[in-house]
Formats: sequence, structure tokens, C-alpha cells
Amino acid sequence: MKPFPTENFMLHSDTARALYTQTAKDAPIYDYHCHLSPKEIYEDRRFHSITEVWLGGDHYKWRLMRACGVPERLVTGDGSDQEKFMAWASVMPKLIGSPLYHWSHLELYKYFGIDSPLTPATAGLIYDHCGAMLATSGFSARGLIERSNVAALCTTDDPADDLRYHKLIADERFSTEVLPAWRPDAVLSIEKDTFPRYIETLRTSDGGEAGDIASLTALLSRRMDHFTASGCVLSDHGMADIPFRPVTEAEANAAYQKALAGTPLSSDEIEGYKTYLLRFLGKEYARRGWAMQLHLGVTRNRNSRAFAALGPDTGFDGIGGPVSIDKLYSFLDSLDAESALPKTVLYSLNPGDNAALDVLCPAFPQEGVNSKVQHGAAWWFNDNARGMREQLQSYAEQGVLGNFIGMLTDSRSFLSYARHDYFRRILCDFIGEMVERGEYPEDREAITAIVEGVCWKNAKEYFGF
Amino acid sequence: MKPFPTENFMLHSDTARALYTQTAKDAPIYDYHCHLSPKEIYEDRRFHSITEVWLGGDHYKWRLMRACGVPERLVTGDGSDQEKFMAWASVMPKLIGSPLYHWSHLELYKYFGIDSPLTPATAGLIYDHCGAMLATSGFSARGLIERSNVAALCTTDDPADDLRYHKLIADERFSTEVLPAWRPDAVLSIEKDTFPRYIETLRTSDGGEAGDIASLTALLSRRMDHFTASGCVLSDHGMADIPFRPVTEAEANAAYQKALAGTPLSSDEIEGYKTYLLRFLGKEYARRGWAMQLHLGVTRNRNSRAFAALGPDTGFDGIGGPVSIDKLYSFLDSLDAESALPKTVLYSLNPGDNAALDVLCPAFPQEGVNSKVQHGAAWWFNDNARGMREQLQSYAEQGVLGNFIGMLTDSRSFLSYARHDYFRRILCDFIGEMVERGEYPEDREAITAIVEGVCWKNAKEYFGF
Amino acid sequence: MKPFPTENFMLHSDTARALYTQTAKDAPIYDYHCHLSPKEIYEDRRFHSITEVWLGGDHYKWRLMRACGVPERLVTGDGSDQEKFMAWASVMPKLIGSPLYHWSHLELYKYFGIDSPLTPATAGLIYDHCGAMLATSGFSARGLIERSNVAALCTTDDPADDLRYHKLIADERFSTEVLPAWRPDAVLSIEKDTFPRYIETLRTSDGGEAGDIASLTALLSRRMDHFTASGCVLSDHGMADIPFRPVTEAEANAAYQKALAGTPLSSDEIEGYKTYLLRFLGKEYARRGWAMQLHLGVTRNRNSRAFAALGPDTGFDGIGGPVSIDKLYSFLDSLDAESALPKTVLYSLNPGDNAALDVLCPAFPQEGVNSKVQHGAAWWFNDNARGMREQLQSYAEQGVLGNFIGMLTDSRSFLSYARHDYFRRILCDFIGEMVERGEYPEDREAITAIVEGVCWKNAKEYFGF
Repeated sequence: MKPFPTENFMLHSDTARALYTQTAKDAPIYDYHCHLSPKEIYEDRRFHSITEVWLGGDHYKWRLMRACGVPERLVTGDGSDQEKFMAWASVMPKLIGSPLYHWSHLELYKYFGIDSPLTPATAGLIYDHCGAMLATSGFSARGLIERSNVAALCTTDDPADDLRYHKLIADERFSTEVLPAWRPDAVLSIEKDTFPRYIETLRTSDGGEAGDIASLTALLSRRMDHFTASGCVLSDHGMADIPFRPVTEAEANAAYQKALAGTPLSSDEIEGYKTYLLRFLGKEYARRGWAMQLHLGVTRNRNSRAFAALGPDTGFDGIGGPVSIDKLYSFLDSLDAESALPKTVLYSLNPGDNAALDVLCPAFPQEGVNSKVQHGAAWWFNDNARGMREQLQSYAEQGVLGNFIGMLTDSRSFLSYARHDYFRRILCDFIGEMVERGEYPEDREAITAIVEGVCWKNAKEYFGF
Repeated sequence: MKPFPTENFMLHSDTARALYTQTAKDAPIYDYHCHLSPKEIYEDRRFHSITEVWLGGDHYKWRLMRACGVPERLVTGDGSDQEKFMAWASVMPKLIGSPLYHWSHLELYKYFGIDSPLTPATAGLIYDHCGAMLATSGFSARGLIERSNVAALCTTDDPADDLRYHKLIADERFSTEVLPAWRPDAVLSIEKDTFPRYIETLRTSDGGEAGDIASLTALLSRRMDHFTASGCVLSDHGMADIPFRPVTEAEANAAYQKALAGTPLSSDEIEGYKTYLLRFLGKEYARRGWAMQLHLGVTRNRNSRAFAALGPDTGFDGIGGPVSIDKLYSFLDSLDAESALPKTVLYSLNPGDNAALDVLCPAFPQEGVNSKVQHGAAWWFNDNARGMREQLQSYAEQGVLGNFIGMLTDSRSFLSYARHDYFRRILCDFIGEMVERGEYPEDREAITAIVEGVCWKNAKEYFGF
Repeated sequence: MKPFPTENFMLHSDTARALYTQTAKDAPIYDYHCHLSPKEIYEDRRFHSITEVWLGGDHYKWRLMRACGVPERLVTGDGSDQEKFMAWASVMPKLIGSPLYHWSHLELYKYFGIDSPLTPATAGLIYDHCGAMLATSGFSARGLIERSNVAALCTTDDPADDLRYHKLIADERFSTEVLPAWRPDAVLSIEKDTFPRYIETLRTSDGGEAGDIASLTALLSRRMDHFTASGCVLSDHGMADIPFRPVTEAEANAAYQKALAGTPLSSDEIEGYKTYLLRFLGKEYARRGWAMQLHLGVTRNRNSRAFAALGPDTGFDGIGGPVSIDKLYSFLDSLDAESALPKTVLYSLNPGDNAALDVLCPAFPQEGVNSKVQHGAAWWFNDNARGMREQLQSYAEQGVLGNFIGMLTDSRSFLSYARHDYFRRILCDFIGEMVERGEYPEDREAITAIVEGVCWKNAKEYFGF
């Protein structure tokens, strides 16, 4: 069988191949949003098998194994590493057209030098080969990051986090900058019954008071100072939809008091509190020069039996949405009207939102800033070849593609930098195709600048790394 | 003029052509959802002209004729067969990009050996040629089914149906299995003023009682036994949206009593009744191993004048939706939580629902079952080249394309098996293109298995034919 | 560097190039919806620089300049023409994939003979070259219209307009028909605080009474007579969504009285009034043979600071929607049921509405009329290569592409006829690709008829120019 993948994977024109090889392939990575564990980076975790890296926490793969009837024992259960890998290999040939098929093979190709398809027939050899390589130096957590040419990465951290591993890593002067990112979902999730307990955790992390909304916001501001001290430059929010129901401080505080007392809130009270707090946070971000990421349109934990058995983030989330575009305009405008809108990156899990989001972005410009509000790279279920291409095209149609801050991994795995490689191939193919079809001039300097910008320079400048 | 269509119609690569010719073209058809008349199959209906087959009940064609200003007399009225055919032929050349253009020509090609375009100039000859062939043996209802290599087909039947024609056909050991499918829309349509009359029809078919919800569900269960005895393996539901408003049996019964008494119901009462009954039915399907089809997102009979003149199913339905994805998750989860979720096939008429549906499906897996919840083939207005391709691509991106149960005709016409041929060409082209672009290995065995699976093997296994 | 654009821009097959060159390129333009100023046409306005034509009122370009951080001074402020042009040129190279990149270059190519890319390096020369040409005869408002081969154009006019410039132009027998179009948005905008003042303006234009809804509708009817006298054949409505809440005349009048008195209305009252008035207008249009355009799914003026500084139509509008498809069916059916549905052209700013709209159109046919209800050309943010192609494809899938009334500029600029050229290239490419891929026969006569129809003949016939 012919090699798969090849060096020209996803590159269908001469211009695309030249752009990829000369400009994109070896460019540094600024991975401004991921879920890597700072502890594992600090401790330079080692892996005993490809199963550990691949199937240890990857709910993308779990979903497809289950869809092929694989018993849970071989997905997240007590099956051996080898059994689980064989189970995954048995699923692979059916995954034509799946991003998992491409990601898996790009990871095998990029990190382990494998260019034959993973099938039940090749799985044994590949398992052993990867295992042997993982046992060598250079395949630890830091080894994988370094060989991926990562200039900086931003983890995802709770406001209560002490950021000790970020500090420890910084002390060691690891060649990659490992920065925290502020993810205050728990403090916004006033509707959850875990909320009072979380607030107590948060209060303890600071040592101050959080008895009313004024002291809560003061505390959050101190925690943001703490994050800034560790190099934080951006925040992140995940939610089903954008809230927008402006309330007074007194109203927000009343909802907060009720929640602390364990009294259920009305949906209006919940939305009012969230609006109040998100507006507070947005202004704080703007003041500090942080960017604000909004991940919208997700619906979570929709299989009750699986949730009871396996907990969250195990493969049972879905696309909600569409985003309330009217509220999103109102929310952003309410900050912009006070000259307090931070740089903002918008993501929706619903691909039908692409056009509306891309049209919205240029409505909130700032002099001297390139695309202050941006539509982020194709997210989660949309992070596949078509999804990335459609995000690029929609961005280009409604905004200025040359300003796009590009790719992020959003991943828990140290092999996921292959996704940047995948994105760069698709980007170069997208640009190359336009040039070769005569839709943009054969201006090598201009397209090189665009590719460089989208691969890394724009993100570096936008976030201020 | 060059022949149209050719043997390579829609097949744009060598791999696609090889897959089609060697694997797809002559594979058997399992047409698990159609609207053929069991009576016409039993009686082996003969057709006097191509007009009878083509324009007798095809509201797809009627719509486009009317869009070209053709008077109703030549659409559904008292025009002669020849006049009507000429009217359709006069419309044809304007239908570039329409699936009707392709279906019509594939039917002429496949069944009548015609490979010149249908135009006003060729219409006379084609009309005569088809008429002559229809007069020969082999062009009866059963002749057309047999020459289409249909292994099994499932009709669409009301719970009150006595299924006598299915039994009569079974007695004759016709080479194609002709099975009933359970379509209980009328018993769910509590909001219609025809509901009490329908319940009486249903009661009469069984002979038992239907005076309250408990006796109604018991009766339905007996009717399902009756369907099982005739080989039924799946159900079908058509509705504007999925209901989900759980109520007690007492509440459902109260709504039922009001409806029987002719008292108008609130929308909450309607949704409560539907939720109660659909959950009951879902559990029954699961218990019997039946699959449940949900056809969502349609809006019906939107032209009052046409409805008054022509009745339902005459070309005045449309795309509603989007589907309430939140309710759909809740409904399926409410069954899954009781280990009572049947195999489920989801269809939405709104193509914007593709991604959300494809992401939902793997959230309800079952060990040992391939893709227990499936996104069905592109339906009705989406059943065109792009719609099918987008359904395949979205399915492949979010699920396991190798598990897809594939095509169905959903048609009233005995020539519609050409749609399976159309689908197979597009499937092979889709697979072939990925292989030739290096997005999947040139692994003939693997792609042959995928094509065989999607063409027929997966459906056979999934439904248990 | 190679020339850009070339004569074969966007034309990727021999069939496409032949269709464009022989049929589309030099066909007349019927621009049935634009925002050109009749005063400027009458006075035959001259332009002093390309900046005046390009950046004087073009909020499309303004958005992208601001997205690149260009200060407002160089967008709409007091920067010199040359500075502003240089600012736009500096943005250009980053606009890969933007329709603005294509429109700008097509305008330079078509009107000024320039086939090198606009960059900061070429900007000076291009500025001077265009300036010199604009100073010559033939580059005035009328000169540009004439050299664009415009047979007729319809401006956009308020019911209170005296249409004096239309009459003056008509008296001069300018070779292009310049007709008014009826745009009564202000009289429908009962929720605005400017409503009473507008009603007084409207009343003054007529001289009669507008004290109650009966006199208002009578007045509007007289204004329509006035428009008909100047050759008006169509109306236009822009709104966030279609209203449908039928009320009695008394209820509509009550809302009208409240609004005149400055009393705020409930959302039900607003929708009731709009439904009443829009139904009245629809019947009037039908009676007069006018077409009704409905532009739906827009959300306007979403940046408060920019609105305060710059006013409306300055680049801060967005995609709303989706359109309430259920209400749209009901609204159209309510007119059709009275045999009072006018020819109707539907536009939505939300591209996710394409399929639902294209399916709706054939549900309201009329004998002897080709596609009485039409889905209009890709509008505003969708007016790009992909958007146009998707509108064509969706139209072709659900309706009869051969009936499509085609392109309009919807523009304030005298250079925008290049958009018809852009559309025609994409149309020919779309048709050519289908033919060369064997999806439609190589029937030159048939495809020529389709292209001629969509380019101009269908619009001429549909509107009755």
C-alpha cells in the first residue's frame, strides 16, 4: 500500500505546497488556549504506551469507539492498554471522513514517523513501535512540547488556582512560556447546587471576604492581579448562550445571597446575575489588556446514565445554539459604550452561526487594533477539515483574513500540536487554491505575510506574548 | 448531442467508477422506508403510460410545473396523459441543477434505456417508447421491483390497517420481502378535529376498548403484535418538532378525554399527551427490537386555496424547524435512562440541523450495536446531490460513516429505485474523491467494505431483515 | 507580476468562458433595486477622485478599514482624498477571500482598464490614473450608467417623495429608464419616536388627511398612483422579521392613534399594526401589478457609540434572523387566499434561511406566471462568490433556476454595475461546471436560454419593464 499520510497531505496545489513548506511548517506555535496540565508539564510526565497518550482522556475517540459498539471496559474501563489500542485500531478503517482519522495519522506520522494506515493488521507493530519511542528521552511532556516548537501556551485555570506549577515552571526557565488563563465558569454558574461550596473554595484561595457581590467582585479583581503576576493575558468562558439582562448591583447581590443560601433562582435572576458579573469581568479584562474568549452554543452531559457512571467530559456533550445574536450585540455594545470592551474572541459550537458572528466582529473596531473582536478557529465538533475551511472562508468574506489570530489546540493531549500542523496545511491549501484559480494575485510576498500572520504573528501581537 | 446520462454519471474519479461498477451498482436494495401501495404490489398493477407512473402522484414534479405557470389542468387536472407529459417535458430544460432533472433522466435511462435529454423535441418519441415498454411484461409493479433487485421493502401503514395485502403477498412468496411499517401519526395528532373519528376507526380495527389512555395504549400494544406478525421491524413518525413535556398518566388521560369530547386543548396539554404517548411507543419499540424513525422539521399544507382544492400531499409543504435539539436530547435520554431507547433514525427537513443531529447520535450508544442512533439519509427537499453529499460528510465528520444504514426511497413510485442508484453514485464519488485526494488510503478492501455496508449490509443488520 | 484580474476571472471551464463571452458579458442590465440618487443622475454628477466614488458612501469598505485599525479620520473623517485612498490601498493585500477585493479590482478593470493589483506600491499611480479618467467626459453619473449598458434602473424612494428628478430625467429621454421604487419603511415603523413626524411629512406630500388608519391607507393609495404615474413597478420593504398578527381595522387604528399621540405601544400592538398595513399594501401591489420585495433578517445600528457619532448606514448593521418561516407562510397565504398576493421577491440576510425560502417559493404559484414568488439574489453580506453560488444552487435545487430574475446592485455607487459582471461570471461558471461534469447535457441552446433569462430577460418579463 502507498504511504499514508504523505508530506503533501491536504496540500493540493503547488502554491499550497510551497507556502506550507517554506512558511508554515516550521513556524513557532502560540497555543493560546489548551487544557494541558501545568503539573504534568512541571513534572515532565512520561508515558508508558500510546494508549496512555491517546485514549487516556480523549472523549473524541471514546465517542466513536462506543458508536462501534465497543464495550466501555475497552473505552474507559479496566481493559489493558494493549486491548484498548486494538479496540481503537479496529474502529479506524470505518472512520473515512472523520477528523479523528486524520489527527491520529498525523500524530503517528509527525511524532513517530509512521506512514502506514492504522488497521487491526498494523496495530501490533505500531503499538510496539510507539511504546519503544515513548520510552526514550524526548517523548516526555516537555520533550513533546519542545519538539513541536511551541513558543508559548496558555493553560485553563480556575480563579481559585494558586498557579504554583506555573510559577515552578517559570523558575526553571523552560524554553516554552507556560502561562495561565482565567476561566471563571464556576463563579458564573450560580444555578448549580455546587455554587456555595465553590464560592467558599474561592474565598479560601484569597483569604478575604465574599459575603456579598461587592466583596465577591473585589476578590475576583485580586485574583486577576494574581493571574497577571503569572503572565496571564486572556480569559475564557464556556456557556450555553450569552446572557444579557442588565440588573443593578442590588439585584445581582440579591440573587447572589439567595444562591449562597441554597434558594433556587428564577431564570431571570440567573441571567441577571450572569450579565452583571460578565460585564464586571469584561471591564476588568479591558483595563488589564486581557482578551476575553467566549465559547458559546454547547449543551452538556446529555446522557444521564453515562453521566452517573463516568462524570462530565466523557463524550456526551452536544451542539446547542444558535447563539442569541441579538443579546451578543447588546452585551458587547454595553461594554463598548463605556469604552470598556476588551479584545474578544467568539466561538460558537453551532456552525450555522458562522456568518452572523463574522459579520458582527467588525462592528466593534478600535483604532490601531487589528480585528479587535475576532471569530475564533473552528471549535470542537467543527474542528475538522471542512469546518476549518468554512470558518476561514466566512471570516475572509466578512472580515479581514489577514488579521486572523489562527489556531489553538483546546486539547488535553501533548500530541495535539499535530492539529496546528493540520490547520496550517488547510490554510495553505485554502490560500493556494485561491491564487491558482486566479482569485488573488500570484503575489508571493503578500500571501507569505498572510500565512505567517495567521500561523503565529497575529496571535503573538493580538495577545501581546 | 452527446448521450445523457452516461454510465459514469456523477462518477468523477477512477476510484469512484470502480467502486460503483464492482460493488455498488448491482448490490441488493433494502428499501426500509417507502410509500408504495401494498395493494398495487399484490395486484401487480400495470401502467398505461409514463405519465401514469411519473405524474400520477408525484408532488415534486407538480411543484415545478406550477412554478413554470403550467395550468392545474395539466398538472393534476383532466388533461390527457399525453398533454401532461408534454407539459412536463416543456419544463425540463429549465431545471438545470434540480434533482428532478437527474431523477427523471436516471429513470428513463435505467428502466427504458433512454440516453437523450427529455425536451419538447424528444418528448413525443420518448412518450411512445415508454408506453410501448410499459405494455410489455416486466413493467408491472412487481416487474419493476424485481428488476430493481429489491431484497426487502417496508411500506408505511396505519395502526388500524389490517395488513391483508402484506399477508396476501407473503402467501405468494414474491421474491422481494414486502413488510409493513408502523406509522401512528394519527393517534398522536390529538389536536386535529378528526382525532375522535380516528380513534373510533382504530378501536374498530382491534375490537377492544379505547375509552381511556390505559386502554388506548393496551390496544396499541395489541396492534403492534399484529404488525410484528407480518414482519414489521420499524416504525415511523412525522411531525413538526419533537415533543417533550413529561406528564403523568392521569394528565395524559385528561387530555385524551377532552380530545375525545371535542374540547380544544392547550398547547401544553397537546405536548404532554404527545410526550406521554411517544415515550410509551418508544419503550414498546425497544422491547420488540423495532427501530424508531423520527421525521422532524416539516410544515404542511401552507397554501389554503390549494389545500381546499387538492387536499394534502400535493406540493404545498415546506421546511419548518430547526428541530428543538434540547428537547430531542431530553426525549431520547428519558428512554435511555430506563434502558428503553430503541434503535432510532433521525431526519430533519431543515439542513441546518445536520451538524447538531450528527453530534447527538453518538451520545446514545449501546454495546455491541453499530451506531444505535443514526442520522438518516437526506430527506425530501434535501434529497439531492448536494444534500446527500452534505449528509454523508456531516455524518462522517461526527460519527462513523462505515456504520451508516444508507438510502431509502420514501417514494410512492415504482420507478424510484433509481434514487438508490443516484445515491450510490454519489456515495462512490464521495469515497473515491477522498481516496484520490489522499485523504484516505488506497485500501480497496476497506473502501469496498464501507460501500457495501452503506449500500445494503448495514441496513440489513441494523433492522434485522 | 501577472495581470489581475484577467478576462477569464472566475471562469473555470470552456463552457463557462463561452457562455460569458457570447451571452452574458454584453447583455443589457435591468437593475431593479438600487440606491442611486435620482438627483445625481439628473444633474449628471462628476467625481473628482476615485476616493469620492469609492469611499464616499461605501460602508462595506469602511468596515474593513476600521477592522485594520485605520483611524476614523481616514475612513469618514476629514482626511484628504489621497490619504483615504492610501489607507484603503494599505488594507487591500490582507483582503484575500473578500468580495471587496474582487469588486474593487473588477471596477478598476472594467471602468479604468487597470489589471494590476491595488497595493500601497501601486496606489499612487492608480489614484492619478483614475483621477485623470474621471475628469474626462464619459465618467459622469450618466456616462457610467450608459457605458454599463443599463436598460433600466429602479431607485429606492419614500412614499412622500415628489419624484421630481424622475420626472425631469424622463423629460430628457435619457437612454436608461430611471424608475422610482416604493419603499414605505417609515410608515411601517410605528415603534420609532420619529413616526408622528414622518406621518406629518407624508400627509403634507399629499395634502390630504392621515388622522386615522382609513385616511392613512387612502392617502397611501393616492401616493401609489403618483408612483405608478412615474413608472413604478415594484416596492421594497426592509425589516428585522416578517410580522404576522392579524388585527381588525379598529385595532390597527387604535395602535395608530396611540403612536400619533406619542404613547408607547406593546409589541403585539406594533406587530398588529404592521400586519394590517403590510397586508393592505400587498393587496394594493397585487392590484397594480407591482412586485413586492421583502428584505428580512437584518439587525441595525448595533454600535451605540458609532451611531451617535456617525448615524445609520455606516457599517454597524448585522445578520439577525432566522426569518420566522411560519409567519412568512401565513402572511403570504393570507393574501393568496384572497387572490391578492403580488409577485414577491424574498431576501434574508441569514444564509441559513436559503433552503426554507427556496422551498417556500413554489408553494404560491400562479398559472401563466414564471416563479411568482422568488428567492432574490444573495443580499448584502451574502453578496460574495460563495453566497451567490449557494443562492443559485439552492434556488436550482428547490425551484426552477431557468426562471430566476437574477442580479441587482442594491448600491449607492455608479461603479457598482461591476457587480452584475461579477454575478454573470459566477452564473456562467456555475452552469459551465455542471455541463462539463456531465450533470446537464451539452445543449448550447438550452444553457444560452438559461443564461440570457437569468441575466436580464426574466427580470424584464417579471417586472414588466
